[in-house]
Amino acid sequence: MLAGNSIGKEFTVTTFGESHGKFVGVVVDGCPAGLALSEADIQIELDRRIPAEPKIVSARIEKDNAKILSGVFNGFTTGAPIAVMVENREVDSSNYDAIKDLPRPGHADYPARIKYGGFNDYRGGGRFSGRVTVALIMAGAIAKKLLSRFDVDVLAYTTAVGNIETDKKFSAEEIRMNKYAASTRCPDVACAEKMEQEIVNAKKEGESVGGIVECMALNVPVGVGEPMFDSLDADLAKALFNVPAVKGVEFGLGFEISELKGSESNDSYIMKGGEVATSSDNMGGILGGLSNGMPIIMRVAIKPTPSVGKEQKTVNLSTMKESKLTIKGRHDPCVVPKAVPAVESAVAVTLADHMVRSGFIPKVLERAK
Amino acid sequence: MLAGNSIGKEFTVTTFGESHGKFVGVVVDGCPAGLALSEADIQIELDRRIPAEPKIVSARIEKDNAKILSGVFNGFTTGAPIAVMVENREVDSSNYDAIKDLPRPGHADYPARIKYGGFNDYRGGGRFSGRVTVALIMAGAIAKKLLSRFDVDVLAYTTAVGNIETDKKFSAEEIRMNKYAASTRCPDVACAEKMEQEIVNAKKEGESVGGIVECMALNVPVGVGEPMFDSLDADLAKALFNVPAVKGVEFGLGFEISELKGSESNDSYIMKGGEVATSSDNMGGILGGLSNGMPIIMRVAIKPTPSVGKEQKTVNLSTMKESKLTIKGRHDPCVVPKAVPAVESAVAVTLADHMVRSGFIPKVLERAK
Amino acid sequence: MLAGNSIGKEFTVTTFGESHGKFVGVVVDGCPAGLALSEADIQIELDRRIPAEPKIVSARIEKDNAKILSGVFNGFTTGAPIAVMVENREVDSSNYDAIKDLPRPGHADYPARIKYGGFNDYRGGGRFSGRVTVALIMAGAIAKKLLSRFDVDVLAYTTAVGNIETDKKFSAEEIRMNKYAASTRCPDVACAEKMEQEIVNAKKEGESVGGIVECMALNVPVGVGEPMFDSLDADLAKALFNVPAVKGVEFGLGFEISELKGSESNDSYIMKGGEVATSSDNMGGILGGLSNGMPIIMRVAIKPTPSVGKEQKTVNLSTMKESKLTIKGRHDPCVVPKAVPAVESAVAVTLADHMVRSGFIPKVLERAK
Amino acid sequence: MLAGNSIGKEFTVTTFGESHGKFVGVVVDGCPAGLALSEADIQIELDRRIPAEPKIVSARIEKDNAKILSGVFNGFTTGAPIAVMVENREVDSSNYDAIKDLPRPGHADYPARIKYGGFNDYRGGGRFSGRVTVALIMAGAIAKKLLSRFDVDVLAYTTAVGNIETDKKFSAEEIRMNKYAASTRCPDVACAEKMEQEIVNAKKEGESVGGIVECMALNVPVGVGEPMFDSLDADLAKALFNVPAVKGVEFGLGFEISELKGSESNDSYIMKGGEVATSSDNMGGILGGLSNGMPIIMRVAIKPTPSVGKEQKTVNLSTMKESKLTIKGRHDPCVVPKAVPAVESAVAVTLADHMVRSGFIPKVLERAK
Repeated sequence: MLAGNSIGKEFTVTTFGESHGKFVGVVVDGCPAGLALSEADIQIELDRRIPAEPKIVSARIEKDNAKILSGVFNGFTTGAPIAVMVENREVDSSNYDAIKDLPRPGHADYPARIKYGGFNDYRGGGRFSGRVTVALIMAGAIAKKLLSRFDVDVLAYTTAVGNIETDKKFSAEEIRMNKYAASTRCPDVACAEKMEQEIVNAKKEGESVGGIVECMALNVPVGVGEPMFDSLDADLAKALFNVPAVKGVEFGLGFEISELKGSESNDSYIMKGGEVATSSDNMGGILGGLSNGMPIIMRVAIKPTPSVGKEQKTVNLSTMKESKLTIKGRHDPCVVPKAVPAVESAVAVTLADHMVRSGFIPKVLERAK
Repeated sequence: MLAGNSIGKEFTVTTFGESHGKFVGVVVDGCPAGLALSEADIQIELDRRIPAEPKIVSARIEKDNAKILSGVFNGFTTGAPIAVMVENREVDSSNYDAIKDLPRPGHADYPARIKYGGFNDYRGGGRFSGRVTVALIMAGAIAKKLLSRFDVDVLAYTTAVGNIETDKKFSAEEIRMNKYAASTRCPDVACAEKMEQEIVNAKKEGESVGGIVECMALNVPVGVGEPMFDSLDADLAKALFNVPAVKGVEFGLGFEISELKGSESNDSYIMKGGEVATSSDNMGGILGGLSNGMPIIMRVAIKPTPSVGKEQKTVNLSTMKESKLTIKGRHDPCVVPKAVPAVESAVAVTLADHMVRSGFIPKVLERAK
Repeated sequence: MLAGNSIGKEFTVTTFGESHGKFVGVVVDGCPAGLALSEADIQIELDRRIPAEPKIVSARIEKDNAKILSGVFNGFTTGAPIAVMVENREVDSSNYDAIKDLPRPGHADYPARIKYGGFNDYRGGGRFSGRVTVALIMAGAIAKKLLSRFDVDVLAYTTAVGNIETDKKFSAEEIRMNKYAASTRCPDVACAEKMEQEIVNAKKEGESVGGIVECMALNVPVGVGEPMFDSLDADLAKALFNVPAVKGVEFGLGFEISELKGSESNDSYIMKGGEVATSSDNMGGILGGLSNGMPIIMRVAIKPTPSVGKEQKTVNLSTMKESKLTIKGRHDPCVVPKAVPAVESAVAVTLADHMVRSGFIPKVLERAK
Repeated sequence: MLAGNSIGKEFTVTTFGESHGKFVGVVVDGCPAGLALSEADIQIELDRRIPAEPKIVSARIEKDNAKILSGVFNGFTTGAPIAVMVENREVDSSNYDAIKDLPRPGHADYPARIKYGGFNDYRGGGRFSGRVTVALIMAGAIAKKLLSRFDVDVLAYTTAVGNIETDKKFSAEEIRMNKYAASTRCPDVACAEKMEQEIVNAKKEGESVGGIVECMALNVPVGVGEPMFDSLDADLAKALFNVPAVKGVEFGLGFEISELKGSESNDSYIMKGGEVATSSDNMGGILGGLSNGMPIIMRVAIKPTPSVGKEQKTVNLSTMKESKLTIKGRHDPCVVPKAVPAVESAVAVTLADHMVRSGFIPKVLERAK
């Protein structure tokens, strides 16, 4: 488990595959037996990864078909490892050989080459490509199906693209209804269009833009998480930083909280509908690393795609001389829309793991008939 | 490893102890053999945890004496687990029994009670108290000693307390020289005094304040970290969110980067002193989850201490009725100064783990004579 | 990692697939970069799994074709996870539905049904079938290729089938030369024929037989293994007990050693060819859980195949009444020959893991040209 | 978790300490909250480790006093890590310095020195001493207390010492009543005396003897264990091989089963008292790595203590010349009696871990009043 390709201690996700290899896949081990699961459950999440609007995405149209290889029998999970895979099609590796020795700024090319002694598959970033989030999303689809059995819902959505930011707060209902309407996955429909324009503009200039993705997890029971090192926020943050291009993660009020007084930031306990609740949710639903029953609210900062059309400075690692680089090939001018399902999956996988670990989700969901 | 009290896959830290128990301790397993290590190496870090200035800290003066129980022989680590412990002294648990059923807002009291069925040691937050960072700091002292053998230096310091924020950038030299001069651990001496005053003011009002801690890791070699899930930033973030009161973590430009264009945010490769470097460090030294040889820069948001002197609303968990709570006892009006060594330790422990894992640090540092 | 389908802490093997599912596969994570690896390297081990002699094996001829899905680029491992898969063909599940409620004695049918609430794929034993050793053998092929780069050789061979036992000691050379000559994988050619006859006789009677497999690992350097819980013999034994049908494991003199005196059993240290060696190898190359440089010698007891042709007593788990069962379908009258490569793979995978963990095998084998 | 000093994935045991260090201790993490636990529960198992009969044990009388450092509050476990420690007293290290460069045959001295570059604490075997089983026994005491809440009982006892072997089968009642009566822990009272004489004779000759320890685990529910790699027998075997001096482990009929026919070895299913049972227990209660509800029966082979009084051949590792060695100091002529509680603890710790993992034991045993 040292090589970094697995996450989760009980609901464990192991991924494989490279951007320009033949397959990208995932093995989900530790999913309880008795969950209804089909390829369609996974396919729907994969399809949502690609916005319908071709103007804002890479020309590489990755229509991925999820294939379940094991772990499902008669329509239900069996308790055995679930392997799922997609084929990489329409791979065009021709652009990469020319720039093999020219690490792209902002990508993992340079440290990956050093780390693996030059044996890494460098084409399209190889193992470090955003392409491999497909594996995360397939695992996320399984995690979300499992969580939904326990009424837990995970909703990610865009709140900013470049300098366009929504200032609205959304209900779960609004998010569900509106997020897929817009290619930018922002539930504020008017703002979503401006965001789309921001991306189109960046593309025209050979530029790229970043943004902010927010995520809420609803109905998580009280007491999910562990003390000290496996606190729920720590494990969520770890998973979120694994989404490519994330440079910041915050919970509840996040960085803003540092300017408040204790009496302003504390969420008071109240009784609400016969249950303990808090009057506000400044903490984002997590106290001391444990869920407190309120919505868990996270926000991640996404950097602009490092692949830009403009000429950039780099170093030729073969000659060790400074050099110029112009990146060709197909690239997304903004990865925020694709980050939305990845964020959702990272959160879902972590919650599934913690809820199984904590005993909130049993090993067998029901007895087979 | 499911109960959350261990971190690190090869340099593994396991902690034990509660705020009002008899001991707080740590077992560090996987530290290479042949590292010179003494109790004094650990003691110095423990002493730095408590600012000399009594005005800004809790009245509980925790003079902790580190005792090494195992794993060191003739002044060197042996490769066996290193256990270190401090005794909890001057513990006054009298204030807690009265409020046993009244969970303190902003603390883990409520979710911990639910999670452990009421068996948790609730005194002073028990296992969820900031007190247990003593164990993290003892592990951090060992990690820092190990890293220093490989010229890696980890430096944390305060950049904001409440509304007082420094706008200076610091060299490593300035940080080392000035951070311990000020009780608030800010290397900007003038600003440090204002921060101190901010804390004193908060204390007078029965209030508390939060702040920002920044941390840099210097001389980390290229290629530390793993792909996909154990990326270096993900594991650093996980460790940082385990420091009590942290609500946000960012690397390099962090949240600001979401507003830049790709050509603005990318760090170009250049040759510098015969080595590959980057012309800026917007990425904070990490690309695709791997270190790129540049300084690793992190920032964490610390919330105001939830224990305030003012009366607060809560719920009596025995009667399930809304209630009032006034917290007595000794509390820090600002945990930022104590968070500084905890942040440093979290980073050091994570880097030590990843550098051992990646093979940058060997299992035996040298041959014994 | 709780669901049991992974082994190895650094060279980590995760398997998936069921006996009558579509695929059986494995993900090997943590294999160093720079190892020359092809599908042929894996295929040869798969082919050796099926003895040429059709008289002694199941009629199901599992000609498996290994397909590498990821982790190999330009003929070398990249450091990324290596996924390998075979398709299950010629699967005939018709016999199993009739006996769904009648657990076969000696198989995992009954406890598996209870454990998974009836959701487990029961066809052919599903996840508990000997079929899944195909995944172990594919991982073993990679481990053996890696070990061979460091001159470590792992050789398993049959020493007993039913009541036929060889009393010879074999050199590595003899084993390599003769083991594949005989369908029973015994390097004592004369004895191997008697073993074959023993199996043929058992088959005729609708019976099955067990046996003993011995394994030696040569050229393992001194000091492989860890203290206390991950001792080398403990981890080898764990892997060996995972080979289906194993009921006993011993090292060196094994159970016989309990009757000796200390002065008889101790292996004295001597100098041999300028190196420290021992005058005997009663300990089987392991002391205190660490390799001592001598050949590692293990022996495993294999039970008779539980699927016999004779009518057996069982309980109908639907009616909870005692019942009779006659197993149809294709079964091996003796799994010893198929256990040989599985034992070899279990040992190879464990040694590869420990040698990578201990730093004897580096993360990158060489620099790419 | 790579350095080998932890075992168990959910009920996790981490040990520390060396034979001639100051302390030996253990951290048990993942023990459910709500288990009544006191130092006396642990002390009784420690006391049983040392047979009352001084003739057959080392002169070093290790009266160990268990001290609980954390994790217990108001007499119950809290869910936080439980640290327990004993002080090493009456340590006499004077004999070891003289033989520092002369590795004792049969001990870990030589490979440990190589592995740790000479930094290991070599006194009395240091980390590799049988002394560290004290930590295992303290963990075992907690595991046994936990298991007893679920009616699971683990009973180990001696069946052979040197050439003296009992041929009786024992009921659980007989074992409980008689095993502690005899210093050799054999429930066959007449045979136990002969075993004692065998040890006394060996001691007189400056010799040592080994033996066989059997262990049964009763009332383990059906379905404990995992498929493939974490099968219950594999994990039990791993734990058993970690008991010092164990060279063989077998379940049920063990090695004998290799000579039977399938129809002879299979345990038929029957109905007994309204429950599914088997008519025999040749499999030792485990099928396909899962418990089947029958008693789990294991047997381990213990080698003669390698420390004998007679002069032995060794190599001086400083001069690399062959040399002679006479071991002084205090040694047990037979470790079988001390192995009995270690075996029991290894089994109890493994069962506790698997029963928590499988969900048979919940995270909180009851609600606190």
